[in-house]
Amino acid sequence: MSDTGEPPVKKLKKSDLDAGSTPEENLPEVFREYNIVQNALNIIAEQSSGVIIRIECNYNAIKTPYLEQRNEIIKKIPRFWITAFMNHPKMAALIADEEEDCLNYLSAIFVEDCIDPYNGYRVHFHFSPNPYMENEVITRNYYHHGEGVPCLLSSVINWKPGYDLLHIIRRRYALSRSPPQPGRPVPLFRQTFFSWFDDLSTSVKDTIGEILRDEIWINPLQYYLLSEHENAVNVVDCI
Amino acid sequence: MSDTGEPPVKKLKKSDLDAGSTPEENLPEVFREYNIVQNALNIIAEQSSGVIIRIECNYNAIKTPYLEQRNEIIKKIPRFWITAFMNHPKMAALIADEEEDCLNYLSAIFVEDCIDPYNGYRVHFHFSPNPYMENEVITRNYYHHGEGVPCLLSSVINWKPGYDLLHIIRRRYALSRSPPQPGRPVPLFRQTFFSWFDDLSTSVKDTIGEILRDEIWINPLQYYLLSEHENAVNVVDCI
Repeated sequence: MSDTGEPPVKKLKKSDLDAGSTPEENLPEVFREYNIVQNALNIIAEQSSGVIIRIECNYNAIKTPYLEQRNEIIKKIPRFWITAFMNHPKMAALIADEEEDCLNYLSAIFVEDCIDPYNGYRVHFHFSPNPYMENEVITRNYYHHGEGVPCLLSSVINWKPGYDLLHIIRRRYALSRSPPQPGRPVPLFRQTFFSWFDDLSTSVKDTIGEILRDEIWINPLQYYLLSEHENAVNVVDCI
Repeated sequence: MSDTGEPPVKKLKKSDLDAGSTPEENLPEVFREYNIVQNALNIIAEQSSGVIIRIECNYNAIKTPYLEQRNEIIKKIPRFWITAFMNHPKMAALIADEEEDCLNYLSAIFVEDCIDPYNGYRVHFHFSPNPYMENEVITRNYYHHGEGVPCLLSSVINWKPGYDLLHIIRRRYALSRSPPQPGRPVPLFRQTFFSWFDDLSTSVKDTIGEILRDEIWINPLQYYLLSEHENAVNVVDCI
């Protein structure tokens, strides 16, 4: 620090700092003392999260009839969900061009939060009859099992012949890469809305589920009403 | 999609999709219906967070004597906090070289979580007598005021003459930039541990506070025991 022109900082010796503290050979005993207290703290933390999850579940049960009523109202608004999705920048980025038309048939969503004592969630997507898939409902379920291990369950999508959107997107992606690699498997493309149902990896964040649960589901009309020329303040004025 | 060889997807007309749905001129009435239900949901959500914050506060009060006891045990371990900080990669990156020696004198930390109904937190840093600062305790307080506006309060650090670490780091940073700009104010340097006390901007995440509250404070011995050659699994074995 001499180049700064400041007085040199007096470096204390190790012995100065250790005065009155525990020699290294006695540390295991100190760690044991620490551990007794830490275990008590862990137990309180577990009790606290157990109580809080139960309360959240109770409040979610109170919310359910209102959420169902909200869904019925939303059904009266044309193309509500695809509009809300496309107005959410992070969600819009996850929807491939080929998926947009199919999502016009998305008639209802229901997010079940906190479905078990391990703070899971389940999202149901209801589709009206459409040229793409046989399923009326597809579901994605994220939960914790036993000691908190994250688990995922997803519906298998029954695409109608020739309308497998993932196949179509994958092929477009493969064709866009030149030169194609003969004999090699078609490369993976970026995650998209429907590929999310195929992705059962728990090592990464469940992005679409979290956007839905924590942002869109809170008040989806806010997103529906957003457009490129409006901001959240205008929306508040509007409703 | 014709280049993929897939059958063309039948694009439905707007009129197909809107069959049975509400014409645009009737949408304001639908939005009003929506808003009544959404208001009910918002009230339930507010009640729920109020209840949850009260429960968290109660559990924090139960934890307090154990946390104080843990702090007394930690005081027996030489250079506990600086070691724990330097073993936490994100925290270590925020500590400037010039700050390390001063942090050897950090004798205790206390994180008060959930100190008011707006989910604030306060972190107290206790220092033993040292060549750098007059303060025995410096505090950083993050809380929400009134309608949830985030607020910050920080202790003013009384540096001893010639030992103002922020001045020393700022000067080193300015000297490292060539050519120096005469007449220009000394440029800002990256956030460091002590500059955090000067930074009262609420527009960015309170990173150091959140690392302390949500990671280190949960079980600081885990970080103290980590070294470059150990991982979390070894630590669990060790204690």
